[in-house]
Order: sequence, then structure tokens, then C-alpha cells
Amino acid sequence: MVGTDSGLLAPVWAGTEVSEIVTDEAWVVAMVEVEVALARAQAELGVIPAEAAAAIGEAVAELDVVDLAVKARGGANPVVAFVTAFTACVPGEAAEYVHRGSTSQDILDSAAMLITSRAFALIDRDLVNTAEALARLADRYRDAVMAGRTLTQHAVPVTFGLKAAGWLTLVVDALSRLRAVVLPAQLGGAAGTLASYVEYSGDPGHGPRLSAEFARRLGLVEAVVPWHALRTPYADIGGVCSIITGALGKIALDVQGMSRTEVAEVVEPSAEGRGVSSAMPQKRNPVLATLVMSAARQVPLQATILTQSMIAEDERAPGAWHAEWQPLREILRLTGGAAATAAELAAGLEVFPDRLRENLAITGGTIVSERLNVALAPVLGKAEAKKLLGRLSREPDFAEALRAAPELSSVDVDALLDPAGYLGATDALIERALAYHREVVGH
Amino acid sequence: MVGTDSGLLAPVWAGTEVSEIVTDEAWVVAMVEVEVALARAQAELGVIPAEAAAAIGEAVAELDVVDLAVKARGGANPVVAFVTAFTACVPGEAAEYVHRGSTSQDILDSAAMLITSRAFALIDRDLVNTAEALARLADRYRDAVMAGRTLTQHAVPVTFGLKAAGWLTLVVDALSRLRAVVLPAQLGGAAGTLASYVEYSGDPGHGPRLSAEFARRLGLVEAVVPWHALRTPYADIGGVCSIITGALGKIALDVQGMSRTEVAEVVEPSAEGRGVSSAMPQKRNPVLATLVMSAARQVPLQATILTQSMIAEDERAPGAWHAEWQPLREILRLTGGAAATAAELAAGLEVFPDRLRENLAITGGTIVSERLNVALAPVLGKAEAKKLLGRLSREPDFAEALRAAPELSSVDVDALLDPAGYLGATDALIERALAYHREVVGH
Amino acid sequence: MVGTDSGLLAPVWAGTEVSEIVTDEAWVVAMVEVEVALARAQAELGVIPAEAAAAIGEAVAELDVVDLAVKARGGANPVVAFVTAFTACVPGEAAEYVHRGSTSQDILDSAAMLITSRAFALIDRDLVNTAEALARLADRYRDAVMAGRTLTQHAVPVTFGLKAAGWLTLVVDALSRLRAVVLPAQLGGAAGTLASYVEYSGDPGHGPRLSAEFARRLGLVEAVVPWHALRTPYADIGGVCSIITGALGKIALDVQGMSRTEVAEVVEPSAEGRGVSSAMPQKRNPVLATLVMSAARQVPLQATILTQSMIAEDERAPGAWHAEWQPLREILRLTGGAAATAAELAAGLEVFPDRLRENLAITGGTIVSERLNVALAPVLGKAEAKKLLGRLSREPDFAEALRAAPELSSVDVDALLDPAGYLGATDALIERALAYHREVVGH
Amino acid sequence: MVGTDSGLLAPVWAGTEVSEIVTDEAWVVAMVEVEVALARAQAELGVIPAEAAAAIGEAVAELDVVDLAVKARGGANPVVAFVTAFTACVPGEAAEYVHRGSTSQDILDSAAMLITSRAFALIDRDLVNTAEALARLADRYRDAVMAGRTLTQHAVPVTFGLKAAGWLTLVVDALSRLRAVVLPAQLGGAAGTLASYVEYSGDPGHGPRLSAEFARRLGLVEAVVPWHALRTPYADIGGVCSIITGALGKIALDVQGMSRTEVAEVVEPSAEGRGVSSAMPQKRNPVLATLVMSAARQVPLQATILTQSMIAEDERAPGAWHAEWQPLREILRLTGGAAATAAELAAGLEVFPDRLRENLAITGGTIVSERLNVALAPVLGKAEAKKLLGRLSREPDFAEALRAAPELSSVDVDALLDPAGYLGATDALIERALAYHREVVGH
Repeated sequence: MVGTDSGLLAPVWAGTEVSEIVTDEAWVVAMVEVEVALARAQAELGVIPAEAAAAIGEAVAELDVVDLAVKARGGANPVVAFVTAFTACVPGEAAEYVHRGSTSQDILDSAAMLITSRAFALIDRDLVNTAEALARLADRYRDAVMAGRTLTQHAVPVTFGLKAAGWLTLVVDALSRLRAVVLPAQLGGAAGTLASYVEYSGDPGHGPRLSAEFARRLGLVEAVVPWHALRTPYADIGGVCSIITGALGKIALDVQGMSRTEVAEVVEPSAEGRGVSSAMPQKRNPVLATLVMSAARQVPLQATILTQSMIAEDERAPGAWHAEWQPLREILRLTGGAAATAAELAAGLEVFPDRLRENLAITGGTIVSERLNVALAPVLGKAEAKKLLGRLSREPDFAEALRAAPELSSVDVDALLDPAGYLGATDALIERALAYHREVVGH
Repeated sequence: MVGTDSGLLAPVWAGTEVSEIVTDEAWVVAMVEVEVALARAQAELGVIPAEAAAAIGEAVAELDVVDLAVKARGGANPVVAFVTAFTACVPGEAAEYVHRGSTSQDILDSAAMLITSRAFALIDRDLVNTAEALARLADRYRDAVMAGRTLTQHAVPVTFGLKAAGWLTLVVDALSRLRAVVLPAQLGGAAGTLASYVEYSGDPGHGPRLSAEFARRLGLVEAVVPWHALRTPYADIGGVCSIITGALGKIALDVQGMSRTEVAEVVEPSAEGRGVSSAMPQKRNPVLATLVMSAARQVPLQATILTQSMIAEDERAPGAWHAEWQPLREILRLTGGAAATAAELAAGLEVFPDRLRENLAITGGTIVSERLNVALAPVLGKAEAKKLLGRLSREPDFAEALRAAPELSSVDVDALLDPAGYLGATDALIERALAYHREVVGH
Repeated sequence: MVGTDSGLLAPVWAGTEVSEIVTDEAWVVAMVEVEVALARAQAELGVIPAEAAAAIGEAVAELDVVDLAVKARGGANPVVAFVTAFTACVPGEAAEYVHRGSTSQDILDSAAMLITSRAFALIDRDLVNTAEALARLADRYRDAVMAGRTLTQHAVPVTFGLKAAGWLTLVVDALSRLRAVVLPAQLGGAAGTLASYVEYSGDPGHGPRLSAEFARRLGLVEAVVPWHALRTPYADIGGVCSIITGALGKIALDVQGMSRTEVAEVVEPSAEGRGVSSAMPQKRNPVLATLVMSAARQVPLQATILTQSMIAEDERAPGAWHAEWQPLREILRLTGGAAATAAELAAGLEVFPDRLRENLAITGGTIVSERLNVALAPVLGKAEAKKLLGRLSREPDFAEALRAAPELSSVDVDALLDPAGYLGATDALIERALAYHREVVGH
Repeated sequence: MVGTDSGLLAPVWAGTEVSEIVTDEAWVVAMVEVEVALARAQAELGVIPAEAAAAIGEAVAELDVVDLAVKARGGANPVVAFVTAFTACVPGEAAEYVHRGSTSQDILDSAAMLITSRAFALIDRDLVNTAEALARLADRYRDAVMAGRTLTQHAVPVTFGLKAAGWLTLVVDALSRLRAVVLPAQLGGAAGTLASYVEYSGDPGHGPRLSAEFARRLGLVEAVVPWHALRTPYADIGGVCSIITGALGKIALDVQGMSRTEVAEVVEPSAEGRGVSSAMPQKRNPVLATLVMSAARQVPLQATILTQSMIAEDERAPGAWHAEWQPLREILRLTGGAAATAAELAAGLEVFPDRLRENLAITGGTIVSERLNVALAPVLGKAEAKKLLGRLSREPDFAEALRAAPELSSVDVDALLDPAGYLGATDALIERALAYHREVVGH
């Protein structure tokens, strides 16, 4: 028996779609796809018989993943054992043409990029859904005035729409960066010269043609040069996933803060059995935000492993490469799980506008003291205005004290105290965020 | 179907003993053990019937790990679903007494510490074996002179024994820190007051007695106070595993450097199918060192997730706690795999003393130029000695030039050029490392 | 001109005592102390003249730090330029004996350990002060009932004393780990054999004697073997500082949460100009907690650089060593600044027990629903009790509904609803934390 | 006195141009520039008198950086004290108009982006220079055959030109990502609504106009919305600098490997006093590569602090923001120093083609055994070929054994053994790298 991990310790991705895309089984399937693409590309270019490629493509590969995992220790990577086992599944002479000219890293890196591209498609979809839900919130609550909070304290009024618009820009930032990532196929042979592939073809110009055809068949980009020890693609993947989970983590943290018992401005979408406690029936925990947060706290560190693996020795590195695989998987499923969870959270988030207003009022009007400062200065003189406001803010009822102040008899105190009147460019900013969303997502 | 991971992407631990200790299944088993220990401790203290505890202890728990994993999303942790499923396995009235007064985190944290203690036992054993093998190397090769290298360049002579002695001190450092780690049971109830446990007992003094009995039964230490949001234990585990893999990583990096084709001073123990390449029959890759390195590059980052989770809100944190579980597992299996691999590497490392000497000679004697500096100063004057050595080191054959130099006619040049004569306190240092090893490991 | 950094971007340490201990100037002073200790140790052992050591010890070293910094690029470390400059400050023949037999890393590592020991003394003092203040809070507020919060929601009652006791155990954990760190002197010569020192002495047994005397004079521990590429000490320093700032960060995060405008349970000690906003006169920001948090978020990452530097090539590493210096400084000043700030925060934290009670009440008694569950089961039967509580908790006034329920006519509902009656082992736990504090800190 | 840091512990940037761009003094100058741009933008839009803006723009700001640093503790950021001090430098009534409507974070974030844009200009220049030097190496040494090394072992032949071409693609990757980073100005007012700016103007549409004019004057991009707690820009900066130093670190690691005494294929450009050792005159350390490596090991961790700060509370975060400043500076100067150093290294790297060939030969022809495998299979049959090669590779002289083998009498063994004949697509790959370079850098 070997160690298995089905997500018991990672509810953020357990049972989500992305989790199926990155299993050991999925990795083996992707390796098969890569070998098939290589054989077909070689057949296309006349290097191996078409029948052999066909047989390889139709082979029924029933491989024992656990056995491959254990055998991987012999070569420090799972490809050697995989090739042996897969070759045994290919009937007749075609077996001779499996993995022809190839090297472990060509197969594993290309499989990793295939899997990444599939995970990215899910993440893209879930980010698009998240963004759409946030755009609806931004629009719907554009006038829902609430306390803006800085360094934990009420500062000046904002609206929930603006808050959602801010979240939206973060998600759109993440989406645009996700879409810019290039996922290349890997094909280089033993040390990145394509020499073995060329040798089999007997044609000095064969290398680049094979690279192009191989990448095309996998739906991946053709790399400038083989990148066995030139690891920008992995660093890019880690970087963008950190930004995605950073964006989603900010949203989750805000939802948690607004869910606090004392604040109670939002509540997560409810579902059978979600967020309840058997012992404490009054509780409704922000479970989705907590799941998102669990991913957001892990991904940047996992991604740093990938970035550091750029510092890799020679033509292929003894360790830097080998340290990438598991973090890549972990990053993809954590990010995918977080995106799916965030989409659900955003789509169903309940907002309580009345409660937003109640909380706004608890400082008795001092939340607009910045505005009073600006407004009274021309009336009373800057110094006098500040002095007066300072004194009145220490009264038990600030608003009452303002109304009673003889110096302010000519001023419409109640108008000034209305938080809805001190929202600056909030509406225009919401519009800008929505426009940015339309521009990137495209509808 | 949910995602599964059997180690295909982590050959450093695939199939090793530690991998079985940290599976999802093992985690469920540990949770059962924790519930049983709780019931038995409560029975011991008279809070639940002895028969109930017995029935809980004898329950046959056939639980579907994948189902638990997916259900964990509802409460953001796997315990709620686990308790329901486990309770259903307990017959009759005893089921009423399962998980009595308890909270998810009590179970999961205690299970995690149980699993950690088991993984630590394996790691301890493998570090002891590694240290023993290194001590043998230090002793056996204490006189095997070789080039000391600094900033990649030959500097002055050392011996392979001294190098092994240095590795040994690192491993012993790691062992002593491993043994200092305290693994506490977790028992606090909903918010760390033990109130529910106390309420069931009807006895205000019950709390600490239950804590003590519970910890004793699990073979864990009793914590000062419940540590739901006081996460020193996790930070300690991460810290010590970083130091262990750091120590093993240094050894692996040196083995890789000495294995380079141009250096060829050591070779890893061979085994059927290990480190070979089907396409390149001449290769013998340092596979074990590469596996160790793959772990050493990951663990410190995973451990940082744990350290950062110390910054946790309130009585129980929404995210920081949830981010710990998977990294803990990853750290334990990476460290355990690295230790097992390092033990094998150290036990079978082949060293080529002749090659050490050959490499030492390639700088034609300049490797002892520091010594010549010291030795010739009294003869020639400091300035003159330096000038002479500078000039002679540019000759094609440094040793010959020294012998031919009339200024040095009174000096025994060949004695000075013998690298074995310039080893300083090497022997005494090796003895100190061996003594340190005996002192910590105890034999 | 070169880049200077006086702390403008790091208010957590700007102007604190620790900041003066780790300046470039302080580093140069420490390097002078190391050279002096080396010379005196050599004189003590008869290897250099006593007068030379005296002259070296009395040399007036007026060194241009900026010039040394720029010249450091030549050798990738500042020692080469430093030794030249310092030697020029030593009069007469004594100059010949400066740095005799030594290597850059002996000087820089020993200086780093000296500086660390000084920073650790300040950190120890500030943690002791923090712990003492927390112990006072734990004792003073042991009965100040408040809402225990889990996953952001009110769970069951705790007391502020218990919260402070939890913080206290974290700080004591950190202190005990700080005091366990061993700071060794470094003395090895070019490649860790002590050969040059031995050669100058002409005595094969000289090495260990010199090591011992050198360490003794610096007030540092003698290492088992030279540790140029065996970096446990740096990893230990990083590890313990991560734990210290993790502990202080948890306290800061709780203070921030309790300072929120809606919660308002604590306020930081006030000081002239602290935490105020010119534009928003109503604000009182939790500035000290924010400073602590700024450090707590940085230190674990900086520390990871040190841990990773354990993976170091050969006898001295080309890069791993060089990457340690600046992070070490940053870690020391961030940790020192955080400890000083936390001590001030803990000593002056204002707690509002009335507000704790008010917040506790906002869930209308449901905060003790766990207790009601336990208490009503024997009266009504378990299933019936749960059903009833579920129904009543949806009434507008939970307490009133409980009192009015005919099923509960025989129960003292008001007694059950008193949060102060559901504190479990709180008092005993506070006592344990205080005892742990006395045990470690020793009074 | 406060702590100062002039680079003594960071020779990779000490004395380089970037170090001057990120000093505390430079930060204060940038804050002045931001205040001036704000005043001028407000004057342009008629909100403050043109004379006031002119006076602010011409103010002679002699500010005591150390005093500001210490005072920064009061507000947890340096802006409050800076505004007071700067206002005092503005004569007459104009002082009233300094910082009008603004908030600390508007100033500090905008200043940070200004400084980043300046550092990026230097880094861009140095990467362009590095790339150009690498392109020259790739072209010049396109036929310089050498051993391709994988997992530390000779694998198949490559050329030094291909190695340089690989380095080149990494640097061009980094450059293209650097140029894609968007650096926005920050303008939001207290909580990101621009309310105070709007209030002063009395014009509801003023906000976006002011944002646009402010950004234009600073030469920065206008953000979609204020980004006080939406931190994609910082994460982007950290991400790209990690990729830059990752790319340069890979080059440095390869240079170090090829500089090893046993390998000796390249040597760094020499300079007066660089890389020498006073005690060991034979040494020539790869100092530039070591400096680059010291940065490459630090930046990804520093950058992770920035990524994690995306998870920020509310409208402005108490700690996440404050943790960004020092790592940003550190990242910029480390990356800038590494780029400057790498440019020097690449421009002057000496390559020894003869030595490349000598090392290639040390495996006695087995480096082309992959080729022999391919070539002999049609002649002897696959199984027979492999068996023969396996047997012959264990002979003392592989080439001789091949020539003597009767089975190979019809084969031109010497042609097959020529490493220059087994280079695959090397030449085409070099051309592709050069084309990629021209495409991105543009000439």
C-alpha cells in the first residue's frame, strides 16, 4: 500500500471538478496522450509507420498507478516505469515505436501543461462566474451606504456596491493575467537539442517540424526552445495562481469580517448542512469564505517553490525539477477549488442594507466628520472649525450637539450629516469597474 | 470520484513507510482512536458508562473516506461528517456517548498529533541510521585527503572524513531538535474552556482531570491550555522538519557535486534499475540525492504556511487552522521520505580515495599555497615570500618551480607540498563530531 | 552615495533600541571586536606577541562604512575590505598580526552571532515585559465574561482573563524557545580545518584550544566543528524569530478585532499623536497592533531564506551564505521592534468589561445554547430538548420564549442563561498559564 | 540615532545605481513629487489657486529623514509626519493647500510606484544589456561543442551557443514580463471614494478628472478604481522580480558550475581586486555569479510577502499594507543589483572552447551512446545493438572497442563518435532564440 490522499484534509477542493483533473490517474492519462501525440506527429512526418501510430493511439492502457508511483523511486521520476508499462499495452510491432527518441522530461512536462490547461479552463469559467455575480452585486447595491473601514475603524461612508466593484476589479485583474499565461509543449530529447528525434528521422531539419506538430496536436504552444531547465512556464503558473487566490482571499476576508456576529452585514448562501454546528444551533459559520481562505493561505508558498525552481542546474536539474510536480498539482487544485467556492459564495451572498445603515450610525455622525471639516472651514475659518468639531465630537450626542451649536445656525447640519451625501465619485467608480469587467470578459 | 494522490508525483515518499502513516485512511483511524480515548477517559472519570466506552472502543468503523472528504465541505472540516458516520457504527445506546461534549478541533488536532508522533518515530529511526552511517564514513575516511572547496574553487586540503563529520553534526543537530518537540493533545470544547465536558460531569474540577487522562491515553503531552488558536505545536513541527530536510539537503547537494562526471569522487549505492537511462547506458544518476533534494526544496515553504497560521483570529480561526492540515501531511511525508532515502544513501555511499587525491592534484600544488605563505615568511620575509609565490604560481609547473627556486634551497619543498601535511585540526574535529553524535544519540 | 535605509519604511523598528544594534556601523564594530578577540586569544596561547594583541585591541578604528559597502562587491563580502582598512588603523608591527590565519567567514559569522546575542537580550527583556503585562491582564480580568468567537461567530462564553492567559502561553512558549537557541562562534580558517591557525602556532593541538579561547572571549558558545557550510545556527535564529512574531501577531490580530468600531472591547494605550487622523478626528487606530502585524507578516518569509541556506555547497557556499546577512538583520530588527511594541501594547491595553458584557448579550442568550442542550436533555429527553431549542431560537426573544415554555417550568432558565455560569475550567486554565509563566520566566 | 543600512550586508546592490533610487531620502523626494503633482492637478482643475500650486512646487523641502522615520511610529506610517514637515517648508498661504483632501496611502502608494518605475527603467536597461551579451555568446559559440549535463552527468553533446541561447530566452521572457507590468497612481481619499477631493471641488464629476490629471503628471497609469486594499500592482511587481532574478540565478548557477576547478570551462571577467583571496593566491572566485545568486535566493521570498498582502481587510488594511514597503524596496534593489551584476558578467564572460572539448572527451565517447543506439539498431537489430553497446561500454577504451568490434566493420565508427555530428536541431534552436530576442527587444 502507498499513501493516498482523496481530499479529506482539503475540503476546499474535495469533490470539486478540478480535483478529478489532477489525480494520479489523470496524470497517467495525460502521459498516454502525450506519447500518442508524439507517435502521431512522427507518423505525420513519416518517421514511424502510420499503423504504429494508430496502434499506439488505440492501445488500451490499464496501468497500475500505485505500482508506477513506487517504481518511480528508481529513476526519481515516474516516466521510466510508465513507458515500460505503457509499451507493454501496445500490441505487436507498434510497441517498438513508443516513446521513440524521447526523454522523461518531454513526457512529464507536456503532460503537466495539458493538465494545467484543463484546470485553467475550469478556473477561467469559475472566475467569469464570480465576476458576473460581483458585477450584479456592484450594480444592485450601488447606493447601499455603509461604513468604510480603515485600520479597523469607521472612516467615511462607502456603498456596498463600491466594495463589490473593488472585489470585481481584483477578479478581473486575475482573469486577465490568467489568460495571458502561455502553456508550451516540451520537446527536447536528452539534453534539449532534439538530437535523438532528428537522428531517427535522418533529416537535419526535422527537429522544429516535429516540435510544431507535436505542440499542435496537444493544443499547446510551441516553445521557443526546449525548456527543461528554463522554467518560466512553471513560474508563470505559480504567479498567476497566487494572484487569483490573493484576489479571492481578499473577498473572503471581507465576507468574514462582515459576517462577524457584531457586524452581521452579510451572510453566506445557505445549504443543507452547511456551516451549522450540532452543539451550537445558533451558529451559521462563513464556511465558503473559510474554504477560500484555506487555499489563499497556501498557494503563494507553494508557488514560491515553483519560482525558486527556475534556479536549475545545467541542461536538466537534479532536484529543482523534481520539486515542481506536487506543488503544481496542489496549486491547481487549491486554486480551482477556491474559484469554484468563490463563485458559489458570490452568487448567493446575502446583503442586509438595513444593517449596513444601522452600523453606519453607531458612531453618531462622526463618520462624516471629514466632510464637516471641509464644509465648515469656509464658514468658521479652518482653525475655528476644527476646534469646534473636536469639542462637539466629545459630546454624548454629536448630531444633537451640532444642531444646537449657535455657530452652525446657518448651516444645514442634517444635510451634512447624511452619509449618502458624502460618497464622492462612488457611482463613477462603480461604472468604471463594470466597464473594466465588460472589456476583459467581453460581454 | 474525487481526486486521489498515491505519490506518483512524489517519488521521495512513494511507497515508503511514512506514506502509509499519513493517508486519509490513517487520519480517519486516528480520529477513531481519539474518540475512543475520549470515551474511555470519560468512563474512567465516571462521566459516561464503562459499557458505553467499551462499545465505542470495540466499534467496527467501516467508513468511506471519499464520502467523508466530499462532505467535509459542508462544515469546512471533515470531523462533522466523520462523527455522524462513526456514531452510526457504534451499536445501541453507546452511540449516545460518542464525541460527548467535544468539538471538531479537539478531534482533528489530537489526531494530527498522534499521526505526527508516529511519523516522528520513523524519522527519528532513519536519522539515527543516517547518523550512524555518516559516523562510519567519518571514521573510515578520516585520512582520505581531498580538495576543500570554497566558492566552487579548490581552497585548501580537507579529508573526506571531515566532510562526513560535518554532515554528521548537521544530522545530530536535527535529531536533537526533533527530540525536543512537544506534541500535545488538544482538548478544549467549543471555545477552549472545557465547559461542555465540565457540564456533562457536573463537577467544576473535572476539566483538568479529563485533559490529563485523555492525553495520557493518547501518549501525548497535556497542553498548558487548549491551543485551538495558540499554534506553537504546528510551528514547532514545521520548524524542525525544515531543519531536518535542510541538513539532508546539504548532504545531497554535496553528493551531487562530488558525483559530477568531471569530479567523480563518490557514487550512490547501486540497485536494480536505479539511476539508469535506457537511451544513455553510460549514465548513473545520483537518484537518491535527487529525491532528497526534491523534498528539501519543498519543506521549508510548506512549513512557512504552518508558522504563518500562528496569526489566528479569536478562539478558533476561520482559515488559518484549515490551511494547516494538508501542509502538515505533506511535511511529514516529505521529511519522512527524505530521511528514509538519506539513510539508504549514507549507508551505501561509495567513496573513491584515489580519485580524491587525483582531483586534489589538478591545481599542481597551489592548493597548499596558503601554507607556503605561512611557512616561507620567516625564511624570506613576508613581502618577499608573497612576491615569490605569486611569480612561481604562474609557472606551468608550480611544484617544479618551487623546487628549482634558489631562494628555497634550504626548505623541504616536497614536505610542504604534501596536502596531507596541511590538515590542521582535522582529526580532532572528527573526534568532536563523533563525540557529539554519541552524546545525543547515546551509544 | 550608496543606498541608505534609516527605517522610514519600517516604523515597527524605527527608533527602537534594536535598530541601533544591527546598523552597518554596529556590524563593523562587531567585526573589530572579533578581530580583537582573535588576536587576544592568539596572544594568550603564545602565538602572537602580547603587545601586538594589546595594540590591536586599542586601535582606533575609524572606518568609512559606505566605502566598505561598495568595496564589498570585489570579494562578494565586506570582510576583505574591512580587514585592509582595519589593519591600516593598527600602528606599527602589530598590524602584521591582524586577522592572522583567518578567513572572511570566521569574522563575519562570529560578528553576526555577537550582534544576534545582543538583539536577543533586548528581545528577551521585551518578551518578559510583555508576558508580565499579560499575566496581570489574565489575573485582573479572569472573571470578565465575554463572547468566545469561533469562525467569526459567537460560540460560548469565555473571559478576557482566559484570552490573555492564552496570549501569555504563546509568549512564554516563544521565550522558552528563544532561550534554548545556541549561538556559536565561528573559527575554521579557509576550509574549516583550522590549518592556518595551527600552522602559525606550529602546534598540532592548537586548533581546539584557540577555538575555545576565542569563543570564551566573545561570550559565545564553542561550536562542535566549524560551521561555514553547516548552518543550523542561522536556521535556529530564523525559526525562533518566526515563532516570536507569530505569537505577537496573534495578540495583535485579536486586539485589532476587538478594536473594531462595532466591537469596541479594547483600546490601545494612547500617546501624544498616536493613531490619530488629521482629517477624521473621530478615529483612534490600533497603531501598535498594526506595527506588530507588519513585522509578523514579514519575519517568517525572511526566516525561510535562512532555512533554505542550509542547503549549501562544499566547504563554503557561493550564494547561500551571502543571502543570509541582510535577512538576518531584517529578522532581528523586525522581531526586536515587534517585541518592544508588543510590550508597550500589553502594558497599556485598556479593556472595557461592560462592553464585553454588552456584546455577549447581542445574541439574546443563544450563546449558551450548547449548555441548554446539555442541561435539558435529562429533563426532556435528548431529541425533544433539541427540537424545542431549535424552535425557540427562532423566536424574536429567545430568553423570553424559554421562560414562557411550559416544558421548562421546572427549570431555572435564568440561571442557565447566565453566561458566567458556563465557563467550565476557565479559572483553572488561567492558573495553569500563570504557573507556566512563573516556571519559565522564574519569578 | 536610528538604524542605518548602507548596503554593507548586501554587496549585490551596494553602490549600484538602483541603490540610490530606493533610499529613504529618495522616498521622501518622491513623496514631495506626489504632493506637488496633486497640488498642480488641483490647480489645473481650478480647485486650488495656481499660485499655491506653484509655491508648493517650488518649496525647498529640507526634511530630516531620521526624524520622520522615528515619528512614523505614531501613525504606523511615515506620511503623517512627512506632511507636517513638508507643509512647514511651504511659505505663506500656499501651505493651506498642501495635501488637500488627501490620505496617507494616496501619497505613499503613488510614491512607491514612482520609485518602482525608476528602478524598472534601470532593470530594463540592464536586462537589455545582458540579453545582448548573451545573444553575442550564443552566436559566437554556436559550434563550440560541449557536454550536455543532466542530473549532474554527461548526457549528450550540446554547444555553448545553445546554452547561452537558453539563458537568452529566459532573460527575454523576464524582459517581456517586466514590460507588461502596469504601475498605477493611487488616488482615493480616506476610503477610496474620492469624497474629500470632490467635496473641496464642489463638483460631483471632479473625482475621475482629478485622478486622470494626477496620474498623467506622475507619468503613471490611472487605476480603474482606487486600490488601497486591491493590491494587484504590488503582487505584479513581486512576481516579475522573482522571474527576473530566477532567470539571472539560473545563469549564475551554470556559471558557477562551469567555473568549478575540475570543470574550468568559463571564467568571470576579471577586475582589480575581484574574486581574489589574500591567503590563497591561486583562487579566482566566481564573485559576480555569487552576488547574483545572493539576490536570486532572497527575492522570491520577499515577493511572497507582497503576494500575501493581497489578503487585506476592508477599505484599508491594518498590517498587510504596512508589511509591503520594506520588502518592495528590498526587491527593487536586489533585482536591480542582480541585473547590473549579470550584465557585467554576461558582457565579460570568458569561455574556453578547448576545455569544453576536453571535458566532453572524458567519458571516452559514451556521451554519444544514445546516437550509437539509434544508428546500430538497423544494422544489428535493436536488441543485439543494445547488448553490444552495453558490453563494449564496460571496456577500458570504449572507442577502441567499438572500432575493433567485427560486428561494426561496416560502420564508420569515428564519424558516429564525433560529438559535433550529434547536435540535432541546435543551430535552428539558437536561431529561434535570437529571433525571439529581436522580436521582444526590438532590434
